[in-house]
Amino acid sequence: MSYYQQHKDTLNRAVEAIHQRTFYAQYPEYPSPKIYGETADADGRTKFRNLVGKKFTELLQEHPSTWVGQEESPYMQEPLNIQYPQFSNDVLISRALETFHQWRKITPEERAGILVESLERIKSRFFEVAYATMHTTGQGYMMSFQASGPHAADRALEAIGSGLEEQQRFPQKVNWKKPMGKYQIHLEKEWRVIPKGISLVIGCSTFPTWNSVPGIYASLVTGNPVLVKPHPGAILPIAIFVSEIQKVLQETGLDPNICQLAVDTFEKTCTVALAEHQEVKLIDFTGNSEFGNFLEGLSGKTVFTEKTGVNSVILDSVTDIDKVAQNLAFSVVLYSGQMCTAPQNIYIPESGIKMGDKSISPNQFAEKLSEAINGIVDNPKAGPFVLGAIQNKNTCNRIEDAQKLNGKIWLASRSIENPMFKNARIATPMVLQIGADQKEIYSKELFGPIILLIKTKNVEQSIALAKEQAETNGAISCGAYTIDEEIKEKIADQMSLAYTPVSFNLTGGVYLNQHAGFSDFHVTGGNPAGNASFTNPEFVIKRFTWVGLRDCVS
Amino acid sequence: MSYYQQHKDTLNRAVEAIHQRTFYAQYPEYPSPKIYGETADADGRTKFRNLVGKKFTELLQEHPSTWVGQEESPYMQEPLNIQYPQFSNDVLISRALETFHQWRKITPEERAGILVESLERIKSRFFEVAYATMHTTGQGYMMSFQASGPHAADRALEAIGSGLEEQQRFPQKVNWKKPMGKYQIHLEKEWRVIPKGISLVIGCSTFPTWNSVPGIYASLVTGNPVLVKPHPGAILPIAIFVSEIQKVLQETGLDPNICQLAVDTFEKTCTVALAEHQEVKLIDFTGNSEFGNFLEGLSGKTVFTEKTGVNSVILDSVTDIDKVAQNLAFSVVLYSGQMCTAPQNIYIPESGIKMGDKSISPNQFAEKLSEAINGIVDNPKAGPFVLGAIQNKNTCNRIEDAQKLNGKIWLASRSIENPMFKNARIATPMVLQIGADQKEIYSKELFGPIILLIKTKNVEQSIALAKEQAETNGAISCGAYTIDEEIKEKIADQMSLAYTPVSFNLTGGVYLNQHAGFSDFHVTGGNPAGNASFTNPEFVIKRFTWVGLRDCVS
Repeated sequence: MSYYQQHKDTLNRAVEAIHQRTFYAQYPEYPSPKIYGETADADGRTKFRNLVGKKFTELLQEHPSTWVGQEESPYMQEPLNIQYPQFSNDVLISRALETFHQWRKITPEERAGILVESLERIKSRFFEVAYATMHTTGQGYMMSFQASGPHAADRALEAIGSGLEEQQRFPQKVNWKKPMGKYQIHLEKEWRVIPKGISLVIGCSTFPTWNSVPGIYASLVTGNPVLVKPHPGAILPIAIFVSEIQKVLQETGLDPNICQLAVDTFEKTCTVALAEHQEVKLIDFTGNSEFGNFLEGLSGKTVFTEKTGVNSVILDSVTDIDKVAQNLAFSVVLYSGQMCTAPQNIYIPESGIKMGDKSISPNQFAEKLSEAINGIVDNPKAGPFVLGAIQNKNTCNRIEDAQKLNGKIWLASRSIENPMFKNARIATPMVLQIGADQKEIYSKELFGPIILLIKTKNVEQSIALAKEQAETNGAISCGAYTIDEEIKEKIADQMSLAYTPVSFNLTGGVYLNQHAGFSDFHVTGGNPAGNASFTNPEFVIKRFTWVGLRDCVS
Repeated sequence: MSYYQQHKDTLNRAVEAIHQRTFYAQYPEYPSPKIYGETADADGRTKFRNLVGKKFTELLQEHPSTWVGQEESPYMQEPLNIQYPQFSNDVLISRALETFHQWRKITPEERAGILVESLERIKSRFFEVAYATMHTTGQGYMMSFQASGPHAADRALEAIGSGLEEQQRFPQKVNWKKPMGKYQIHLEKEWRVIPKGISLVIGCSTFPTWNSVPGIYASLVTGNPVLVKPHPGAILPIAIFVSEIQKVLQETGLDPNICQLAVDTFEKTCTVALAEHQEVKLIDFTGNSEFGNFLEGLSGKTVFTEKTGVNSVILDSVTDIDKVAQNLAFSVVLYSGQMCTAPQNIYIPESGIKMGDKSISPNQFAEKLSEAINGIVDNPKAGPFVLGAIQNKNTCNRIEDAQKLNGKIWLASRSIENPMFKNARIATPMVLQIGADQKEIYSKELFGPIILLIKTKNVEQSIALAKEQAETNGAISCGAYTIDEEIKEKIADQMSLAYTPVSFNLTGGVYLNQHAGFSDFHVTGGNPAGNASFTNPEFVIKRFTWVGLRDCVS
């Protein structure tokens, strides 16, 4: 039985979920022993430990020119000493070109089947991937498991399903008969999916699989060979994905170089040369705006980016301010604000946030938010695990700089102890209150656990500023709290015009940072934060071209 | 009854046709009195004559700054003296912005209904549009009717149907309930279609409606206000379309400036300033590669182009060489080669074209093709009407230059008499034979009735050259004649990799120049000829962005 036959139901359910957009998950997000096996966690940890300090030999790419690896654990602040095979750009490109024709010539269904099979195998390695993610990104255990494992796999499946559907959208062949009065024209028409060519997927240091697998799988399902260029600081999680893809390819009799890992070092990156290479036609990128803009400007390439953004929260009126503060506090503490969807600028009218006939002043809210943050941070059962560690030392410098800014510090960043990792690089969120006139402070992304409370004249100004920030500096998420239907629609309308998704009145166990596969589109484009667009149809359609053939029958 | 209700069946049939891709036409292509009315032709001609020499007052755009118009009839080689209202770019942009919110806030269904209604009204003006097209583009009567009337309207309907379908692809709202063990998260999720903004559609002088209406209707149905910037030499046909769109908009209580005509003059074009304007987000362009490449390079815009290309014909083996010569001759004579899909480079192996156990040498084919061309040109019932007239004097200069090239002229270009228009600018096709080594001659578009017969070593070289030309200089069509299944697949595969549609073995009444609505994709992208992509899903999807909203229920 082919992998397509074997996974046909999974693919059908995925496509149905894409269109229904109700809750759907193929891969369970909770690391439960009942689901994943009693020893799965311990086994995964052991496997991860066995990878540390060695050559990573699972890739099926032959004859490396050398071995490199510079990952460091933010929890231990010491090198992992894992070495990966490195290849010259020429070798990577020529191998990709060699595999292209093999890969494009099998059917979209066969490609989709092979790719789902790779996800099923990765499923058995979710725990290993989770530990690999912890010790490269600094994410907490739970997020490492969820984001790098099931959530990433769901996003990958979404891309496969969407890509397969688009390729099946038109008939392969039709008999086209045009009546011409006394005779008819009869053509046999055929339409072929022609992939764009080599795809380069450039990863980031904080979400090495979640942000990369949609592009990898979308390019692969549409017939393009892929070069996966991870961030030098976070290679292992995606290396495990790539190795599983390669194994399925080889077992199917295909060239494993259809999906190659392209590692480099901090000192000598291969990214620019690969991106500029004329044979590279597709680029997926997650990272800073400067490099993202450079990539978007390359001519003759189709580029999908997720860059920096300034996410806003608009506070107007609430039913329970404590629940709001708790919800936002969690969003802020979660992975120390190192998420592209984390809030940064919280706009509060100077007249306060309406609650019944009361009004919560900006200062009162600042206190409540700071207390709620401390409540999580200082809870030994939550703090260290929700915060995780700081991936990049520069983030700590940024916090230090922010603490010197001209504003009122309601909560200073500090370190806490992680009971399991005494040497972890930890920084708790800081809360700084400034005025709406201090645009120079809040008009840029301050990546990390830095929260700005911005006092505005009124909610109209809050909306205008949030919109302006999204239009000017990009935004990937927006939170809003209002129980006034008119203001709600105004926020929805205005932020939509800045192409920014809005989450209203979130309390309880759902956070604005979370974008769910099969339901929430992510960075659909239209503002400077990028056009990653997973997974709306654009994300897959732009990776291939329809070509029609006509044959004269009579 | 709303226009959507009224035209719902038409829209449903259009969407079905897009997916079935069997023959479909909403608007009958033959100017038959039985279909369009006994007096339709005469009435259309009278109406056209009444427009000549006057101000065109049908547009609902108020307070022009001045009136301009420089169209000339290629049949009479004298000015039409029709004047159109002109507006400053500032007025055009500010009016478009004013209408944007009105237009985006009605439903996609309402927009689609209004737009189909406009096509139904334009249907009653097909003959007038035909005469307007003849006397601006130089097309023959039949092509003027078909291309500017029914074929353009079918392409427009295709864009409306495709745009409506994409906007209906995901639910507007869903209840999203995620089980979390002891509780569940309940969000109400909503997805909105957010149009990109002002759309600029830049027309060409040869197909003023066919090449422009897909972009106009695709942008409109997805909620974008449109500025229609016709070529200063071919305004009237599209002015009639725009005026009908404006009338329906006004009758529906909407601002007619949702679709504005933006005319300019040869001496002082408004195109660059409009294209570069930061509020212009979408650009559709048909014309030369130099300007098309400039537009594609503008940052922050979504650009659809149809530029120049070098279309090839590959001759390998045939069942009846005379039928092949006749078919190609018609393709060449049709509108004097002034179609983006017209063939230019015909590759013939030096060993000849196989037919049974015979072989037709390149010289023999050159003679046959020249004879077949003369057969049409010198047939008084066909020649003047199929040839039409030369739109632009520069095309005549290009022919003169081509006749001085280093090759064997099998057929020289000449003029013939058009019995109805003694002063028509006419140039019959020229046939020049050159060698495969004379790349400097055949590696560029020689727009107009210039045919190059290129002698190659063998069919493999023919394929390689046709592919190389497509990849390097672009191609919109390709013809191939072979009865060898292996060679056929090789041509199909190789030309597909250059993203060029191939028509095989066309004889009889079907020509490689013709791309049919609802069936043949047109310029799908991937080679330098452009990415107009009507109407594959990309053509409409890229004109709007999905934005999601989430509302916490519990």
